[in-house]
Amino acid sequence: MSETQVEVVHAPSRLQRAASEALGSALLLAIVVGSGIMAERLAGGNVAIALLANTLATGAGLVALILTLSPVSSHFNPVVTLMDAATHSLPWRDVPIYLGAQVIGAFVGVWTAHLMFAVDVFQISTKVRTGGAQLFSEFVATFGLLLVIASVSKHRREAIPYAVGCYITAAYWFTASTSFANPAVTLARAATESFAGIRPIDAPEFIVAQLVGLAMAIVVAKHLFKATNVPTNTPITQHTSPHPPSIRQ
Amino acid sequence: MSETQVEVVHAPSRLQRAASEALGSALLLAIVVGSGIMAERLAGGNVAIALLANTLATGAGLVALILTLSPVSSHFNPVVTLMDAATHSLPWRDVPIYLGAQVIGAFVGVWTAHLMFAVDVFQISTKVRTGGAQLFSEFVATFGLLLVIASVSKHRREAIPYAVGCYITAAYWFTASTSFANPAVTLARAATESFAGIRPIDAPEFIVAQLVGLAMAIVVAKHLFKATNVPTNTPITQHTSPHPPSIRQ
Amino acid sequence: MSETQVEVVHAPSRLQRAASEALGSALLLAIVVGSGIMAERLAGGNVAIALLANTLATGAGLVALILTLSPVSSHFNPVVTLMDAATHSLPWRDVPIYLGAQVIGAFVGVWTAHLMFAVDVFQISTKVRTGGAQLFSEFVATFGLLLVIASVSKHRREAIPYAVGCYITAAYWFTASTSFANPAVTLARAATESFAGIRPIDAPEFIVAQLVGLAMAIVVAKHLFKATNVPTNTPITQHTSPHPPSIRQ
Amino acid sequence: MSETQVEVVHAPSRLQRAASEALGSALLLAIVVGSGIMAERLAGGNVAIALLANTLATGAGLVALILTLSPVSSHFNPVVTLMDAATHSLPWRDVPIYLGAQVIGAFVGVWTAHLMFAVDVFQISTKVRTGGAQLFSEFVATFGLLLVIASVSKHRREAIPYAVGCYITAAYWFTASTSFANPAVTLARAATESFAGIRPIDAPEFIVAQLVGLAMAIVVAKHLFKATNVPTNTPITQHTSPHPPSIRQ
Repeated sequence: MSETQVEVVHAPSRLQRAASEALGSALLLAIVVGSGIMAERLAGGNVAIALLANTLATGAGLVALILTLSPVSSHFNPVVTLMDAATHSLPWRDVPIYLGAQVIGAFVGVWTAHLMFAVDVFQISTKVRTGGAQLFSEFVATFGLLLVIASVSKHRREAIPYAVGCYITAAYWFTASTSFANPAVTLARAATESFAGIRPIDAPEFIVAQLVGLAMAIVVAKHLFKATNVPTNTPITQHTSPHPPSIRQ
Repeated sequence: MSETQVEVVHAPSRLQRAASEALGSALLLAIVVGSGIMAERLAGGNVAIALLANTLATGAGLVALILTLSPVSSHFNPVVTLMDAATHSLPWRDVPIYLGAQVIGAFVGVWTAHLMFAVDVFQISTKVRTGGAQLFSEFVATFGLLLVIASVSKHRREAIPYAVGCYITAAYWFTASTSFANPAVTLARAATESFAGIRPIDAPEFIVAQLVGLAMAIVVAKHLFKATNVPTNTPITQHTSPHPPSIRQ
Repeated sequence: MSETQVEVVHAPSRLQRAASEALGSALLLAIVVGSGIMAERLAGGNVAIALLANTLATGAGLVALILTLSPVSSHFNPVVTLMDAATHSLPWRDVPIYLGAQVIGAFVGVWTAHLMFAVDVFQISTKVRTGGAQLFSEFVATFGLLLVIASVSKHRREAIPYAVGCYITAAYWFTASTSFANPAVTLARAATESFAGIRPIDAPEFIVAQLVGLAMAIVVAKHLFKATNVPTNTPITQHTSPHPPSIRQ
Repeated sequence: MSETQVEVVHAPSRLQRAASEALGSALLLAIVVGSGIMAERLAGGNVAIALLANTLATGAGLVALILTLSPVSSHFNPVVTLMDAATHSLPWRDVPIYLGAQVIGAFVGVWTAHLMFAVDVFQISTKVRTGGAQLFSEFVATFGLLLVIASVSKHRREAIPYAVGCYITAAYWFTASTSFANPAVTLARAATESFAGIRPIDAPEFIVAQLVGLAMAIVVAKHLFKATNVPTNTPITQHTSPHPPSIRQ
């Protein structure tokens, strides 16, 4: 106990946290779109091979990004930020700056990928992604992702990078939409004509489906994990939360 | 020692544990069947590429699901539940509700996958999986899985998600049956005509082979791990067991 | 310190350790040969895809097997046993029973794979693996494997399953011989005509190259890790060694 | 606290650290080039499949190498060494010997791969890798790698092997240059005509781009991680730094 008293807790500032959200979202989109372009170019028309490469890059990239930026802030996803606010882990007044940083970062990431692969920087996707099956997929994908994050960040916080990386690896394949599961990613992927794109007109309904998944995840997590214990001492003292535990509920 | 005294142990209720078993089984089957459909659609007839994608999704998905639901209950498999009861880790009176939740969840998961991929919800598999080699494969696959779970849950509980995910990744390839190794999964996979299916008439003998694997695993684990030590302090205080240690043997 | 005094150390018996070596070697060979047969059958003649599947199964399988059997004994490889004896971690009198168990287990594993895939149980490989480049590959592969094991088992014992699984995943691809790196595996792979086989006449020189790699690894590890510290408290109290620390050097 | 007092800290000597850098760089290049040759030979012209195998081998190999050599020294990369010196973690006087060891080791690794695959030992690459998109890719790749290392080695040192392995796995696909991100690797890959090569004339501008990425990473890491806490007790006492903490800033 005295150990925690001697430790001076420095919390990253709101600006640092917003910068971390923007940087992480940019790198995430650079990974998703960049590896999509590379995979499409090399796969010789076999879409399964292209998606395998895209999956491997995105899953592994998420592990690295969350390990790297979680000491500051590592949502990279508006529905994660909203869940954190809804469960009192993040003050509501921080939500707009998080969402803004995520969306701006995501677009910058798409443009970075385009620059790296020497294609037109500004593009608009023509890839059709619509229909009930796609929307139901987004609902399931988002519900699953947020259930994973709600549980693992409560019970076993140090495993979050691996849990999220593994979940997205599975979700690229088990949903018909390849699991966007992230409104900022959805908006930014409308800005690429590559493999990973989505028509702008299809984006809003994807986001609605993701928000329904968010609502369901909050309700299920609340009831399912009500009686579980939070470990009193986690072996890895990691600041995945941007502010000291004392001001959290 | 005083540390453990101040920790108030809240055990998830039987209803919460059953819900966790049903939800996890549903997500597991959605992953197995959904990624099977996606892989078959994209692989252009190369079955090895399709099975690679199916393997990656299932292995990674299991890691995420067990990390997420183990604080409540994460068997997702009747033979795991039966082993837990046989070794006095779970009261026998809880077994029926676990098995029921797993089977119902598994079917819901198959139907969820069908909905996501816009195919008929209710199907019956016509995929032939029979013969001595297939049954011997199921025996080996189930024996191996339960040996992994028996040892790792005793000696190194926090590694269970990775051990199970890695084992199933290997088992999809090293057994001729692609390792069902789970009676609830076997029943539910009879309800899909996709890549992952099994004819209903072939399911019962698969389940018998799995039960023989269970018996063998209990005997081998009992003798092999009799003299090994259980670590006195695990670094990650995780409630993979649904009830407090005090009422366990 | 008082914590270690209250812990009663039960050491697995020599019989239990030999059984663990035999069982682990059998499962390892079932994985290597079984996934090789499956991969060759499904890959439609693309050897890279077949080797990718074989690699994934072997790497993941090793993680699961070592996690499972390390509380008893998990060498599964005569050169690991010899290194352990040479560095005084294992009494020399235990070496013959370890080596015998590994070789017998390995053959049983090959035959198990043949049974699972309904091919002739007893086979002799006709696959040519000879020449200086192959032998140099085996030398490099074995040297690397034993350097990994020497260092990680000294400095970070709980990571051994992941280190070995990752090393073999790499070594299947970066050596021309696909890294047998194990005399018991080499002998047993002479007993299969599948993808993973080796002509019996080529096996002895493979084993000689592996023993040279062993000698080199012992010398390099001795000088490179002389001044490094062994952690005083490992977070995971795991008995990867088959006998209590008190009787070790 | 008394526990740390009884621990006698032995620091690896400068010679041991240089040997570790040379050995690790050699094995890294043997993995990159060797798996590239193997993949190209087996992939039947499908470059995506070849790069998947190359990625898997490199990512997994990095995990194994860093786990193995980090108790002595495991930069294997001049820009990592320069960042360590710039942030006062390594004395500047050690930099030349580190860089020399890394470059010599890298060339030895390429030649080792050539020997294992029975091709001419001394080669000069003719593979064109030039243009703004390639250089921008190297800048992004190096910036990302060093940001990962800066953060994870500060906040969660024991996860460095996994963070670096996962990052490189992603970076092989999301950058147009397949992420050399390492000046020693860049020089040595000019000495192979295989899949992994780069024309000697293209190497210098790659290295300049990497150095710009280094500068950017130092600035961003300094501002982003200024207020984050370093964990007071890491569960795994590992000597990734080659000298005792007392002489570090």
